[in-house]
Amino acid sequence: MTIKGRLAERALGVEKYLEGCLRNRGIPDSLLQAMEYSLLAGGKRLRPVLTLAWATMLGGDAERVMPFAASLECIHTYSLIHDDLPAMDDDDLRRGRPSNHKRYDEATAILAGDGLLTESFVLMTEASLIRGLPAERVLRAVSVLAVAAGSGGMVGGQAVDMEFTGRAEVALDELRAMHAMKTGALITAACECGAVLAGASERDVENAREYGRAVGVAFQIVDDVLDVVGDTGTLGKPAGSDEAMGKSTYPALVGLDRSRELAEGYAKEALERLSSYNGSEKLFLADLSRYIVDRVC
Amino acid sequence: MTIKGRLAERALGVEKYLEGCLRNRGIPDSLLQAMEYSLLAGGKRLRPVLTLAWATMLGGDAERVMPFAASLECIHTYSLIHDDLPAMDDDDLRRGRPSNHKRYDEATAILAGDGLLTESFVLMTEASLIRGLPAERVLRAVSVLAVAAGSGGMVGGQAVDMEFTGRAEVALDELRAMHAMKTGALITAACECGAVLAGASERDVENAREYGRAVGVAFQIVDDVLDVVGDTGTLGKPAGSDEAMGKSTYPALVGLDRSRELAEGYAKEALERLSSYNGSEKLFLADLSRYIVDRVC
Repeated sequence: MTIKGRLAERALGVEKYLEGCLRNRGIPDSLLQAMEYSLLAGGKRLRPVLTLAWATMLGGDAERVMPFAASLECIHTYSLIHDDLPAMDDDDLRRGRPSNHKRYDEATAILAGDGLLTESFVLMTEASLIRGLPAERVLRAVSVLAVAAGSGGMVGGQAVDMEFTGRAEVALDELRAMHAMKTGALITAACECGAVLAGASERDVENAREYGRAVGVAFQIVDDVLDVVGDTGTLGKPAGSDEAMGKSTYPALVGLDRSRELAEGYAKEALERLSSYNGSEKLFLADLSRYIVDRVC
Repeated sequence: MTIKGRLAERALGVEKYLEGCLRNRGIPDSLLQAMEYSLLAGGKRLRPVLTLAWATMLGGDAERVMPFAASLECIHTYSLIHDDLPAMDDDDLRRGRPSNHKRYDEATAILAGDGLLTESFVLMTEASLIRGLPAERVLRAVSVLAVAAGSGGMVGGQAVDMEFTGRAEVALDELRAMHAMKTGALITAACECGAVLAGASERDVENAREYGRAVGVAFQIVDDVLDVVGDTGTLGKPAGSDEAMGKSTYPALVGLDRSRELAEGYAKEALERLSSYNGSEKLFLADLSRYIVDRVC
């Protein structure tokens, strides 16, 4: 099966868990609807899949890790909802459908995001409280993920991105640092948490983290490239929106060819972090790092 | 010393911790400023103080519990920032100063709230990872607090409150249920987490929870009453804003006198939950439940 097919197959397992994970939690109907509208809107489920693959490769139990893996998708989804708000990137379209505040309203979108972020931590604890992973491991993983998603990570990256938008000059170093926070931190944490939850050695945890870091940068560069060369139908969001918003991107700073080269370099770095492992999960993670560079959406 | 003085003294200890708790975390300057603008704007620090008092009364170590206690103030602050947003309650004033989005801008206020919410979970984990509380206890407390703050608790309560606003008829039961989520859940969790972090018995945890539940309702009723009878200077927010926004309140539904009676009843309920304890913390918690009813701001 192609890597795209294998990724889709794994995404399906995550999907199934996500479909039930907000039910029977006493969430008011209208709020639940808005949360699920965005959470169940498809997507590659890349972050949970990374957590599960790293955990499994290092001897962990995917069933037990699942609630934690799903929490990464909740966090990712909340960040998309809030980023799309009129006060932020003001995007009307997300994954080919109206963005959350267009489908509902701004207040609901803010609360749906807040709700998804908070429920993500409920899910994390359930990896121990319901599925029996050791509390020490889960608490350490909660810390890793909260730091990555927080104001020194993803949230801080969005703040810096807003500052950059429309600014005349942004250096490549600044752009790289911003992306490391905005998109890199969560992808890195996805891999690292998988290793932590598997009870892996510090060496393995480091490999997971560095694989995630490399894959995260590659992912962002390709995102920037696709915004230039992709089309709206395939992307599920308006192509060319970065340029229209005056956003600094890799293609704008170093051109398309050099951007692709850079992405290739990071994919290779990721691959090197897998050299001491074997088996189907290693193959999957290796193919995934290639796919992230070769993807067209 | 009066209970107001004792509360202020304890708030000072929390304040000192809060002043440093976001530093050296790699938060971009402008975002950190906006987060601290609201976090360090004063306030009674009621929720952390409740956590610390319950933990101490049940044999816990206040020093170790402090990061977790502080996380409650981060969550409370984030909820105020988001509630004040134009799309929500559209409040220009908070604690006598411009609200976060007035002082900065909407995007920053959304991100400051997201940041505070996420950092709160970093702080919670530090009660174990840095201050050495057992991971099992902290993880259970994280779960209690995340459920309370989430879409079946505080966030859900705000969503229901928005639905109620301007609606012709809201029954007392509906109002009570909404407040139990919007303000009650976090106050309840503050007490419950204190007991959990102290490693208390299930019986003690239940007492803490029910004390918190009663105090939470009393607090909300008095809040509603003060919005009618208080003045803008003392409250730090516009008096009469509930009525102006068409919000359902206890005074509007049952009148001022009956509202005060109800608050008294809940304070008495809270007191009963303390009957099996002794010492200075019991006295403090008993006086606090009275103060919540008698306060004027």
